[in-house]
Amino acid sequence: MNTTSKNNHIPRATIQRLATYMQVLEFMKKNNVEVTSSEPLASACDVNASQVRKDLAYFGEFGVRGVGYYVDYLLEAIRACLHANREWRAALIGVGNLGRALLNHQEFPRRGIRIVGAFDCDPFKIGETIYGLEIFCSKRLQEKVPKQNIELGIITTPPERVQRAADQLIEAGVKGILNFTSARIVVPSNVSVEYVDFFHQIYALTFNISTRP
Amino acid sequence: MNTTSKNNHIPRATIQRLATYMQVLEFMKKNNVEVTSSEPLASACDVNASQVRKDLAYFGEFGVRGVGYYVDYLLEAIRACLHANREWRAALIGVGNLGRALLNHQEFPRRGIRIVGAFDCDPFKIGETIYGLEIFCSKRLQEKVPKQNIELGIITTPPERVQRAADQLIEAGVKGILNFTSARIVVPSNVSVEYVDFFHQIYALTFNISTRP
Repeated sequence: MNTTSKNNHIPRATIQRLATYMQVLEFMKKNNVEVTSSEPLASACDVNASQVRKDLAYFGEFGVRGVGYYVDYLLEAIRACLHANREWRAALIGVGNLGRALLNHQEFPRRGIRIVGAFDCDPFKIGETIYGLEIFCSKRLQEKVPKQNIELGIITTPPERVQRAADQLIEAGVKGILNFTSARIVVPSNVSVEYVDFFHQIYALTFNISTRP
Repeated sequence: MNTTSKNNHIPRATIQRLATYMQVLEFMKKNNVEVTSSEPLASACDVNASQVRKDLAYFGEFGVRGVGYYVDYLLEAIRACLHANREWRAALIGVGNLGRALLNHQEFPRRGIRIVGAFDCDPFKIGETIYGLEIFCSKRLQEKVPKQNIELGIITTPPERVQRAADQLIEAGVKGILNFTSARIVVPSNVSVEYVDFFHQIYALTFNISTRP
């Protein structure tokens, strides 16, 4: 399967749409749809079919002339494009309500994301075991990250502690951070940060509901 | 403050960027930055400054020639554009770990989203009180949604129950749904759905880490 990116400048929006395409294709697969076209993928992302073809063309040629896309094949191809077809090991910092929910979230193992470390700075939480993981002091990231081959950091601290958590993760060698707090963080250019801020989606709803004719 | 949308066809990507601009502006405000330009907003969204100006131009003229943007004023303006400057009442369906975390999430009240109803179909949960809310059977949405002026539905059920939860919300009159499950849902055209699927962000990380030179 040729999924080498032809172009290093793949727009961020393309990557985000690929994740949505995956979601739509998984839905089709579950419903035993074997072949599809660009249209349902386009409509899920609110773009046109030519944008879908353009997004996929960054990575290769996946359509079959006169047929369309084989759901299973395209799904695996996109997974490979996103490097989501292997296991990734992650540390979670901030074992509050949201952190606990994520530690027990079945989608992580299902999608190859293994949360192998739980960290907090609250002395009352340190030493506690949650879903099979002992909670360690965040200061021990430096030691645990290399030992456990951790590549991703998931931050679920209160917003005022997110920068310190990010600094600790980066110092320990983590190259990608998923920030669940509402606060922005500053990181060096060799570290990637993504924000899970569901107020983006809430504001899309409040806007759509309010402006719908 | 003139924030009436000049154009009904505002791209989805613009709305999503506006939410990021808000986040950046909030960060500036917290750090006592009073005036800014398009560049920091652009860089947070990985677009160029002219895209920021274009995004804002859908709603009005917010920049001051020779000065830039007043942080406070632009923040309030964007909030008004997104209709996020008033209270919205929401119901949450699926009181599992994630649901509980959201019910107690301080960002909701802080941003004017009041979760006023908690629903589940598990008879062991129904009747329990969580963070001051009694958990009701999802069948009672029909009665509770109009009575409590609920406009938004937040779904945190297991993926296999999301469509039923969505159907119940829609039947009860909810016009916007925030879906935290990984499963796609089908809704009538007068209902808006947004997906909070943090695997979008995780895949952006796995892609970025893997393809970084």
